[in-house]
Amino acid sequence: MNENKRTAMGDKPDVFNLSCPLPLRDHATVQLAHGGGGRFMRELIEGMFLPAFADGRPKDPPHDSAVVEIGGARLAFTTDTFVVRPLFFPGGDIGKLAVYGTVNDLAMSGARPLYLSAAFVLEEGLPMETLRRVVESMRTAAREVGVQIITGDTKVVDRGKGDGIFVNTAGIGLAPPGIEISPRRVAVGDAVLVSGDLGRHGMAVMSVREGLGFQSALESDCASLAGLVEAMLAGGGDLHCLRDLTRGGLAAALNEIAMDSRVGIELEEAAIPVSEAVASACELLGLDPLYVANEGRLVAFAPAGEAERLLQIMRSHVAAPGAAIVGRVTAEHSGTVELRGRLGGNRIVDLLSGEQMPRIC
Amino acid sequence: MNENKRTAMGDKPDVFNLSCPLPLRDHATVQLAHGGGGRFMRELIEGMFLPAFADGRPKDPPHDSAVVEIGGARLAFTTDTFVVRPLFFPGGDIGKLAVYGTVNDLAMSGARPLYLSAAFVLEEGLPMETLRRVVESMRTAAREVGVQIITGDTKVVDRGKGDGIFVNTAGIGLAPPGIEISPRRVAVGDAVLVSGDLGRHGMAVMSVREGLGFQSALESDCASLAGLVEAMLAGGGDLHCLRDLTRGGLAAALNEIAMDSRVGIELEEAAIPVSEAVASACELLGLDPLYVANEGRLVAFAPAGEAERLLQIMRSHVAAPGAAIVGRVTAEHSGTVELRGRLGGNRIVDLLSGEQMPRIC
Repeated sequence: MNENKRTAMGDKPDVFNLSCPLPLRDHATVQLAHGGGGRFMRELIEGMFLPAFADGRPKDPPHDSAVVEIGGARLAFTTDTFVVRPLFFPGGDIGKLAVYGTVNDLAMSGARPLYLSAAFVLEEGLPMETLRRVVESMRTAAREVGVQIITGDTKVVDRGKGDGIFVNTAGIGLAPPGIEISPRRVAVGDAVLVSGDLGRHGMAVMSVREGLGFQSALESDCASLAGLVEAMLAGGGDLHCLRDLTRGGLAAALNEIAMDSRVGIELEEAAIPVSEAVASACELLGLDPLYVANEGRLVAFAPAGEAERLLQIMRSHVAAPGAAIVGRVTAEHSGTVELRGRLGGNRIVDLLSGEQMPRIC
Repeated sequence: MNENKRTAMGDKPDVFNLSCPLPLRDHATVQLAHGGGGRFMRELIEGMFLPAFADGRPKDPPHDSAVVEIGGARLAFTTDTFVVRPLFFPGGDIGKLAVYGTVNDLAMSGARPLYLSAAFVLEEGLPMETLRRVVESMRTAAREVGVQIITGDTKVVDRGKGDGIFVNTAGIGLAPPGIEISPRRVAVGDAVLVSGDLGRHGMAVMSVREGLGFQSALESDCASLAGLVEAMLAGGGDLHCLRDLTRGGLAAALNEIAMDSRVGIELEEAAIPVSEAVASACELLGLDPLYVANEGRLVAFAPAGEAERLLQIMRSHVAAPGAAIVGRVTAEHSGTVELRGRLGGNRIVDLLSGEQMPRIC
């Protein structure tokens, strides 16, 4: 428990509790928000999974993939299950997500993604043609990224005990020696960059799910970030940390890093790229684009002096033409994310307690 | 298409089609049997997954885990999702299964299991206490086996869109250099050994699921086989192939190997160990123990001359006191499994088309 954080924000003590392992609050049952990327999920991880699997807090802060040394090789290892509804949405589908999502988690450690597993939970009665489309999409995505799906599993559950298709992919990548990209390296003074405009994936999924009329303008940003990371690493600068922005959006990613790295993060609202289509859709639905899911965007931390050069590398890559420097790491307000508004005035960007959009990935 | 197999068993041509990639039959929808370990699942794998992910037939016949070389290390990689119902059953639970199941798949390549991922799909409304029991069970099992759960994921699906808990574990193990344990090495003349009596897991799960009265006598065989395999390897003999017996039981495992290795397999009914409790329960329910799932049993193939020694090594290990030599590999009837009955008379042990017991693992 970090007392100075509690002191700094005495009126909101709960938020700050989250940086140390805590007993779960009084949730007798699992709620949708426990899978939402916000505060409840963090509580579940810190209160249940880490104590059981990592004997409390692990040596290193949790990251998108774990890096371990095996037989002389430095490997990144990660897993992700995809339960998105609907299975097909503008700009992507569950198969594409399942390949890119795990590839991206590997890339966030600087690793070159190599091999994936694919495990399906199918609901009895699923049209075989739907499965075929998903499998074809996975094949295409895997080829494009240059990873191989080499092992798999299929389970079928009774009608009404699943939801069409759930796909789990786990992945192995080769992490280059001497490169450490981790929340642990985030340092005061670092610049914070995003690789493009935010919120497309979440709003594209919402648009079809809710039958809203703005589909045409909105496509998911669903894409591999492996090539972009490779280009960023090849640039030779000192990347401190990367994280892909999925559930909970930029807000969740930055809050996690602020808490795990024990730093403050200050964002400039005016610098954060959000497309007009996403902004309008968010306004219509009362959502905040900072919390909306992405599936092809990352946030990067690098020394301020290297930020401009890194930005140019990112902008010249096909996956990040809209990259921007959006903030910086501060010593103040450790564990929190602050947004400096367009019109002046700061506000805290909290982890959400509730669930803005369930089943988004 | 292997014409001589069709010729050998002209009255049952369908079985033999399965040894080459086939278009899926006319199943417009996914059926429970597609996850059952029998013929439908094989069709799904051969007709859809292998063509998409392995460009048709992979170089090596599919095995419980894939072995790849990365950065100089020889790694085994595997994945398995567990959807067993009920979550807790005599002798085990879904958490224990999820750890042992993946550990066993790694061990079947001769690999030493090292790291697991754990990915949960939770149904909204699941009692938190149930999740905690499962997580604790995974922790205990992982410690016992000496593997670490180092990465994870949690998704929550709406009430009625899941079934309590599904757990996926993927695993990485280190395969010793120079050791190849694969269906490819199965050779005519090999002895076929099983590590203990068959069918306990399936019947233990059925007993609680169907509310049958014979719980007390029946406990799942759910256990790690990693230590046993290590002992078998340390014995220095030439192990050709190993496979753990899960969905579809001994019958499914042997049919797969017979087809993939293009050999015949002959079993001695009298030599196959089945406990009295399992035999009675099977009789009551009209099930064949050869098809019933296990979660702590393996079948091994080794040169006939080494079989007795291997048997002694197995019997002196805590995981296989009831090991037995149950059959041999033949050149005749390639692709099929034959059972020589107690009273004389042979019968073919087919892959099942239907689903004997769904949601067993």
